[in-house]
Amino acid sequence: MKTNLPLDANRLWADVMALADITDPARPYTRRSFTPLFLEGRAWLARRFAEAGLTTRIDTAGNLIGRLEGTNPALGVIAVGSHSDTVPSGGRFDGIAGVATGLEIVRALRQSGTRLNHTIEIIDFLAEEPSEYGLSCVGSRGMTGSLDSKMLDLTEPSGETLREGLRRVGGDPDRLAEAKREDIRAFLELHIEQGIVLESRSLDVGIVTSIVGIRRIEVVFQGEADHAGTTPINLRHDALVAAANTVAVVRRLAEQLAGETEDYFVATVGILTVEPSASNIVPGRCRLLVDARTTNPVLTKRFVESLDLESAAFAAAAQVSRTAFETLSDGPPVACDADLRAALRQGAQDLGLSEIDLPSGAGHDAAFMSRISRSAMVFVPCRKGKSHAPEEWADRDAIAAGAAVIFQAVRALDQSLSQDAS
Amino acid sequence: MKTNLPLDANRLWADVMALADITDPARPYTRRSFTPLFLEGRAWLARRFAEAGLTTRIDTAGNLIGRLEGTNPALGVIAVGSHSDTVPSGGRFDGIAGVATGLEIVRALRQSGTRLNHTIEIIDFLAEEPSEYGLSCVGSRGMTGSLDSKMLDLTEPSGETLREGLRRVGGDPDRLAEAKREDIRAFLELHIEQGIVLESRSLDVGIVTSIVGIRRIEVVFQGEADHAGTTPINLRHDALVAAANTVAVVRRLAEQLAGETEDYFVATVGILTVEPSASNIVPGRCRLLVDARTTNPVLTKRFVESLDLESAAFAAAAQVSRTAFETLSDGPPVACDADLRAALRQGAQDLGLSEIDLPSGAGHDAAFMSRISRSAMVFVPCRKGKSHAPEEWADRDAIAAGAAVIFQAVRALDQSLSQDAS
Repeated sequence: MKTNLPLDANRLWADVMALADITDPARPYTRRSFTPLFLEGRAWLARRFAEAGLTTRIDTAGNLIGRLEGTNPALGVIAVGSHSDTVPSGGRFDGIAGVATGLEIVRALRQSGTRLNHTIEIIDFLAEEPSEYGLSCVGSRGMTGSLDSKMLDLTEPSGETLREGLRRVGGDPDRLAEAKREDIRAFLELHIEQGIVLESRSLDVGIVTSIVGIRRIEVVFQGEADHAGTTPINLRHDALVAAANTVAVVRRLAEQLAGETEDYFVATVGILTVEPSASNIVPGRCRLLVDARTTNPVLTKRFVESLDLESAAFAAAAQVSRTAFETLSDGPPVACDADLRAALRQGAQDLGLSEIDLPSGAGHDAAFMSRISRSAMVFVPCRKGKSHAPEEWADRDAIAAGAAVIFQAVRALDQSLSQDAS
Repeated sequence: MKTNLPLDANRLWADVMALADITDPARPYTRRSFTPLFLEGRAWLARRFAEAGLTTRIDTAGNLIGRLEGTNPALGVIAVGSHSDTVPSGGRFDGIAGVATGLEIVRALRQSGTRLNHTIEIIDFLAEEPSEYGLSCVGSRGMTGSLDSKMLDLTEPSGETLREGLRRVGGDPDRLAEAKREDIRAFLELHIEQGIVLESRSLDVGIVTSIVGIRRIEVVFQGEADHAGTTPINLRHDALVAAANTVAVVRRLAEQLAGETEDYFVATVGILTVEPSASNIVPGRCRLLVDARTTNPVLTKRFVESLDLESAAFAAAAQVSRTAFETLSDGPPVACDADLRAALRQGAQDLGLSEIDLPSGAGHDAAFMSRISRSAMVFVPCRKGKSHAPEEWADRDAIAAGAAVIFQAVRALDQSLSQDAS
């Protein structure tokens, strides 16, 4: 690894650590979107943005944006960003390393007296991780015209709608159209790999080739909450029996589909809730969230068709109703922009850093941004591939190396995109 | 049904309805033990006890006790009672009808100028329903010397121990021995049937023959909380896959055991929690509570042996650890006292009410009370057998009829037990 980078690795690291400290103390590292802690983290970020000389605002889709005007604003915007929210009991790097990267690039630019032709924006997207409303990538959906009113009607467990939540964090659901952008010419995102390829091969950065498509399906079984002592087995309407069989079949179908093709396919039930949840009451209602991901949409289609048939049969066998089998979101796989990937590869080579092409098994804001702009991503190694867990770890120098690659690409793109425009 | 009863059906009904109103408004009818609402209900009960001329106290096991001294206190106590806590989203009658019955009997006694030889006590047992600490019948366990220090160390989800909770509701875990009673000569409990026998045969009351034994088992699977997008299926340690297969086998074993014998057997998974519970994280930890009930302990033994083997195999197949397979409680089936049952039957006949012998599929405080006293129960009909649900319903006159049967038995036992003692 080259250590003579065009930015300050310690300053970048300090930002990541400072934001990590803004966590629910009972379950580090947790800064769930829409919570007071999330707003505390954003207030801290907004101060840092302002100190770096950025003009700061929250758009109507709830994204925190810092802006540094270019010498030729008509050229449009080069944007760098990621997200500052976390999953419950998540890590210190997923998302925030990408936001801190943008911030450090701006500081390094100003320190070196460089003024770009393009305006540069640092974006902290709202709620990239699945929020309590059951939706992920809320901010990047909003910025790309992909947040519809059905999504805004989604509710979190206590009944608040996403529409209300969005207003609460400074967005404006009635003026969402204003968040949609047409002036962004390139979007770059740094993220930890969340896999073991870079670590196991001792590589500095991954240049992301494509991002998996993610389909999220809500399944609800409605039975009857009867007394667990006095209701004979054959008279029960046990929603959990149907739900448990559905969990088992999600696993079986995933094993089958992943085994029969070279394409990437995984499926998970990460949420299963039971109501009323008492040891002496037959479960009356269960809700599952199924998450299926692939680089080949045909596999997801086959998965959903089988799951639909089998879960309906489980409901019938358990004498319960399947009251929902709903696709909550369905993002197609996305290929990263070839020109941006070339700029990133060149940046790595200029800095003497090793790189490799990699697909992304995780979804990212960059997938939505590709709908309105050329987009690409840089992965940095993380220990044992762990993420979404407190032990998630990326080295200071690894993050700085990835950030420097993006910095190189931003400067190169500022030139090449100016020539394209002229 | 005879309407000329020796007590005031409307006054009894008004008490049941007034206590039902003390509910979590978001999910009627909920008055969970150890909550502020529960304490509010008890404060209301204590005032009604005092108005009826009872001396009121909370014993060291957290039971609310109203006492009316007899003419010959040396004869000991005839006790009537049940519980005022509910399951989440439960009903208005389960438990409280039995407490209100005791209260109405005392008022009717005083109104008629009758003074019994025996002291009479009305008992509102603490936490008959499974509490947040995973234990049911906390108060009746305490009153019968069956609440041990391992149980007191149980914790609810936020980490409070039952020991601390008990102190919070007015008990004293350091002086639990003082709650154990040796002076109770007879215990009688009125309860809704929670089944359909009485309603379907248009009978007034059920005289309970025996109460099922209940075994509760906690099963915990510990896996690893990995990213649901980047962790291939074959590298996962998914705790929910093992848990779901365990739910399915509980059902299969219950069907098998209930089908092959005349004895009563049911088994239920009413609680299943998933951590960290996010749609894009492979579940790292799952906890199940299994509830198995029978009139024949051999069936539960076979059930637990099979469940132990099969759940261990599911853990191995899912590459997770089964970190707990623990019996939290194990109450044997209990036969009700023959003399008390005869007194109840005679009471029903005296009042011109129809009665039948019935086993109880639900557990009750009476099962624990049988360890220190003759005990018996009266069931009253409830609509469609529904309980532990908001639609739980028992008619005013049905409750009054059951209460009158207990009143007759109390007066008869006051005489017959006085003769036994002399």
